[in-house]
Amino acid sequence: MQFELTQEYLDQIKEAIASKNVDYINQTLGELHSADIAAVIGELDIEESEYLLNCLDRELGAEIIRDLEGEIRKKLLKNFSPDEIAWYFKHIDSDDAVDILNEQPIPVREEVIAFIKNQEKADHIRELLHYEEDVAGGLMQKELVKANLNWTVTQCIEEIRRQSKKVEKVFYVYVVDDHEKLLGIVSLKKMLLADEDTLIADIYEPDIHYVESYREAEEVAQIMEKYDIEAIPVVNVHGKLLGRITIDDVVDVIKEEAKLDMQAMAGISESTEEDANVWRMSWARLPWLLIGMSGGILGARFLGLFESTISLVPAMAFFIPLITATGGNVGIQSSSVVVQALANKNSINNFNLQKLFKGFLIALINGIAISSIVFLFNMLIGEKNEIAIIVSIALFSVVMLASLMGTITPVILDKFGFNPALASGPFITTANDLLGLGVYFLVAHLLFNS
Amino acid sequence: MQFELTQEYLDQIKEAIASKNVDYINQTLGELHSADIAAVIGELDIEESEYLLNCLDRELGAEIIRDLEGEIRKKLLKNFSPDEIAWYFKHIDSDDAVDILNEQPIPVREEVIAFIKNQEKADHIRELLHYEEDVAGGLMQKELVKANLNWTVTQCIEEIRRQSKKVEKVFYVYVVDDHEKLLGIVSLKKMLLADEDTLIADIYEPDIHYVESYREAEEVAQIMEKYDIEAIPVVNVHGKLLGRITIDDVVDVIKEEAKLDMQAMAGISESTEEDANVWRMSWARLPWLLIGMSGGILGARFLGLFESTISLVPAMAFFIPLITATGGNVGIQSSSVVVQALANKNSINNFNLQKLFKGFLIALINGIAISSIVFLFNMLIGEKNEIAIIVSIALFSVVMLASLMGTITPVILDKFGFNPALASGPFITTANDLLGLGVYFLVAHLLFNS
Repeated sequence: MQFELTQEYLDQIKEAIASKNVDYINQTLGELHSADIAAVIGELDIEESEYLLNCLDRELGAEIIRDLEGEIRKKLLKNFSPDEIAWYFKHIDSDDAVDILNEQPIPVREEVIAFIKNQEKADHIRELLHYEEDVAGGLMQKELVKANLNWTVTQCIEEIRRQSKKVEKVFYVYVVDDHEKLLGIVSLKKMLLADEDTLIADIYEPDIHYVESYREAEEVAQIMEKYDIEAIPVVNVHGKLLGRITIDDVVDVIKEEAKLDMQAMAGISESTEEDANVWRMSWARLPWLLIGMSGGILGARFLGLFESTISLVPAMAFFIPLITATGGNVGIQSSSVVVQALANKNSINNFNLQKLFKGFLIALINGIAISSIVFLFNMLIGEKNEIAIIVSIALFSVVMLASLMGTITPVILDKFGFNPALASGPFITTANDLLGLGVYFLVAHLLFNS
Repeated sequence: MQFELTQEYLDQIKEAIASKNVDYINQTLGELHSADIAAVIGELDIEESEYLLNCLDRELGAEIIRDLEGEIRKKLLKNFSPDEIAWYFKHIDSDDAVDILNEQPIPVREEVIAFIKNQEKADHIRELLHYEEDVAGGLMQKELVKANLNWTVTQCIEEIRRQSKKVEKVFYVYVVDDHEKLLGIVSLKKMLLADEDTLIADIYEPDIHYVESYREAEEVAQIMEKYDIEAIPVVNVHGKLLGRITIDDVVDVIKEEAKLDMQAMAGISESTEEDANVWRMSWARLPWLLIGMSGGILGARFLGLFESTISLVPAMAFFIPLITATGGNVGIQSSSVVVQALANKNSINNFNLQKLFKGFLIALINGIAISSIVFLFNMLIGEKNEIAIIVSIALFSVVMLASLMGTITPVILDKFGFNPALASGPFITTANDLLGLGVYFLVAHLLFNS
């Protein structure tokens, strides 16, 4: 059962919408998973999407809304009234409902919640709205099955039955005491194999991993990944069970982080959605271009100091791009390796003298390789000896310095709480451009004057 | 129960190893999760690690070996004989065992398998060794619970009990016919709530997602993520159930891909482990440095054509770094956005004229911004009018061209089956350097001669 969205399929759906063929829509899309229909909607315009959602069963509609991309959902839900949205929320888990509400303006949020008939659900959503989106509390859902330590397996199964519509995937039953304090978990497998009269107290697993609601999403992802946990319980500072975070949300966190790292490396600020408008997207890129520009202007001023040298020996200028490009490339290579090492929180010494030395050796090997090749080339094409020597010495020095900069910058950024991946972007390239120019003309100055 | 590895803790463990204090080691480490002990071992030397493993319970030892990083494990297992390794495999799932064997030289693999007493396990491992590591077959494990369509819930529970030692996490029971053909799944929750005499045929879910053994790991990850599946069944071309892939392996795939993309952007070939030796690491970086170097040399030759211009107007040379850096930055920004769009396989039109136009508009806005600022700056510092005009026109053109290049290159790479993230690396920077120089001197040539 694999679905692939084709242009043909899409055209048929569009036609069915245009001709208001409700039966065809229901029949064709009814076979699909909500995530696939969400992908179809991603290719339709808002009016078509609205019509399509209204054709379908309300529960399926809710799942589709849950599976839509944020930007598309935000636009689409503008066409729905708060009570319609509240109606869909009946079939959407509390954490997803909160994500959807967070995309809406604050007055709409309040209105939607006011229309939710199930008081418990409304309370849950209100509670979850208080958390920042990037902490454990902002990832968790209230839907879970909990059992008292003193229950029997039968009582526990009854509870699962009672909650079964609300909690789609159970994973574990969370064991609490009379004050709702989290004590441990019981897996469904253990319950299935246990005798009906067995007490939960006799079969539960007390040594479990949990997270406090204020923990950062990144930390939660690391814990769940490290210990292979499919659903981790979230507690407050007193150990009271508040909710659970399921692995699918953590996969989203991991992907989002990879995306942010890539954007940091590429020099794009904040998480711009693909559907953001042109101004916002330009604005997200401009700061980094300005950093690069400032570096370029500084470089121009610096080169201005050597006007007479360049005028006299224009060949000095020819190799400027070679020097700056090599510095930039080496800097990014070094920094990205350090960034990846820093991301590994399992080790105490993500960064130590030994690694610094290893980086030094790698730079040494590559520096010698690059500068030798360029020297040979310059000899071959009959470049002046002085120029060939200056260029190769400068290249070698730039490789060594850029490697050092690339290694140290992410460590410093990390120490001060910034995303170290920033060091792999325009920031380090710009710094290395300037460094390269400085070294190049300094070497020239020293050799010419000696 | 959160563990943080401190230097103090590590020193105590090292001391206990040095003084051969087995009791202390067992007591202290016995409280930890195997993943935490694996992190401790990551900080010890090989002899210490070996001693420590031999102190601990064999089952815990097996889990630690499973949780170790590949490079460390490879070194450590050199100190163990094939029959010792085979003994540990008793407590290691087939997929993890195969990963471990794949790190070993082929003769060792064969020897280890020959020492595995459980014939079924040995057969499973031999079967899994045939698959490439980056396809579904290479990710799957043989450990799963399957039930015949005609069984009752009671029979199925008996099967789970029988397999319970072998299959730690059940997730779902896979339903097959008499020929082992996969028909569907039953969740443990459903089984827990069903009557004991209910037939599996009456409660199983027939519309399920599965993957063929030859599917690429990346595709498997996308399917599991899209449909929120914790354990996906793997079948052969005839639909016969072969194994299952659990979500933890897919999380590893997602992280590995993010790492490879980052390396591609940074210009580092292949997946170099942190612990690889200096030569291999230098070698992984050199090709990209050589690309950059070739670009730099080409640039030098190109600039050589304008020797007289540079000699006459050295200020022309001052702005070379500004032009090349801006081209590089814009190119990487554009390409990384396209790379991320291409990664989203849910949409048919990851790349279309509308997006191209949007990229054009963003480039237009930023191009105007950057070139205006630089023009104003050049006016302020009293740069010659001609130079100021040439620089700003060239800057603007470079932004537009680099944006176009950055947008198109990943699409082309993707079409031809390369990782589009390569386009965000030294490749595009080098191309844009040359492009920038070309535009700069072309503009100068046109303006000077007019």
